[in-house]
Amino acid sequence: MAKRDKPDSLTDVTVVLVGTSHAGNIGAAARAMKTMGLSRLVLVAPRGFPSAEATARAAGADDVLAGAAVVQRLEDAVSDRALVLGTSARSRHLQWPELTPREAAERALARRPSAIVFGRERSGLSNEELDRCQALIRIPTAADYASLNLAAAVQLLAYELRLAALASMSASAQQVVDPETVTHGELEGFYAHLDEVLVSIGYLDPEAPKLLRRRLRRLFNRATPDRAELNILRGILSAVQKHRGP
Amino acid sequence: MAKRDKPDSLTDVTVVLVGTSHAGNIGAAARAMKTMGLSRLVLVAPRGFPSAEATARAAGADDVLAGAAVVQRLEDAVSDRALVLGTSARSRHLQWPELTPREAAERALARRPSAIVFGRERSGLSNEELDRCQALIRIPTAADYASLNLAAAVQLLAYELRLAALASMSASAQQVVDPETVTHGELEGFYAHLDEVLVSIGYLDPEAPKLLRRRLRRLFNRATPDRAELNILRGILSAVQKHRGP
Repeated sequence: MAKRDKPDSLTDVTVVLVGTSHAGNIGAAARAMKTMGLSRLVLVAPRGFPSAEATARAAGADDVLAGAAVVQRLEDAVSDRALVLGTSARSRHLQWPELTPREAAERALARRPSAIVFGRERSGLSNEELDRCQALIRIPTAADYASLNLAAAVQLLAYELRLAALASMSASAQQVVDPETVTHGELEGFYAHLDEVLVSIGYLDPEAPKLLRRRLRRLFNRATPDRAELNILRGILSAVQKHRGP
Repeated sequence: MAKRDKPDSLTDVTVVLVGTSHAGNIGAAARAMKTMGLSRLVLVAPRGFPSAEATARAAGADDVLAGAAVVQRLEDAVSDRALVLGTSARSRHLQWPELTPREAAERALARRPSAIVFGRERSGLSNEELDRCQALIRIPTAADYASLNLAAAVQLLAYELRLAALASMSASAQQVVDPETVTHGELEGFYAHLDEVLVSIGYLDPEAPKLLRRRLRRLFNRATPDRAELNILRGILSAVQKHRGP
């Protein structure tokens, strides 16, 4: 019964808050997490943390706050993650793969360890931060008022994660971490290699590479290659390099 | 499109807050409602309302606050409702019919006008108040920490109500084909081009290509590139071919 209420899989899902400016929101997010059985919080360059306000709003979830890691850049928060999902309040110019909170929760549990990333209260995540996400989560807010509080957004995702974790437990499915899972760092290695090859064959202008890089990242992030596939892609890149000759 | 984002059915569902003691929670609840398209709020014997704190926490949802009805007893809030559902943080002595938030949202929309009733921050709803509810909604919190903030509970129910309302609308909505959709034939053209290049750079053995081809197809099929992305991929292949020179 205790086990039924504490799905282990939730410990493999990290909540990452980027550039939070109100410490009270960090406390409220910790509380939201704990009500749903989530415990791993990472703060990227938070403002005014730790603070009494954060602790007050955390209510009894101060253990989540106390255990929170603080890093300066998003990449330091997600480099060991097999799946990184970002949240976004608005539609982006580039069409990004969008998940509902429910789909996101299922994926985040299926492909662990994973991270769900929440942006700044006013401005969300930057494009460079979004580039590190395999998909975006779109919370279906009202068209005329999408002003979801940060902790409320964390609450919704934590709730869906809990439902998904309980559902997969009651299906009595044993979750095994896939040994073929590619980490964020390995995927970054592929992007660096791709970049190098595209510049060398004259397809990518290193002076104005931004949009093309982003589009390619989006495409391959969406595909989320496994290790065998990543090896094939790296092999193709090496073959292109070798074939051009000295 | 506007209609798609504003399900009319949500105006028939009232959120009732009973004996709220922190005015800030009333404001945060109003904000939570509005993000999901709910607008009808009834306050039963609130403490210290209206207040600047409530308005501040409501952010842009002050219209929901301004439109809130204030009554002294629960029966005055729900007398015209066809269905009244109460929320409860704990199990009751009397075995009550319990609904998940998802089930509750479906019922509240199916049997309108309806009300979802939230109790006091510390003590919830009294037994006399529960007697007025047709069923209880049980939010599946962690066993060791059920301390869900009032506005967070409103947020979860409002979210499920919105999902249920959108689902019942899209059941009758028209499906439109995306003009950027890539046809099967265009995708086959890309695979043929990829094949040609991989053979020419010596990566693919045309005598024994089967597994590699299949893996690459699986990868790109999963990504389901749009037209712009397919053009980029074809462009890269052409650049590789051109760069090798005659």
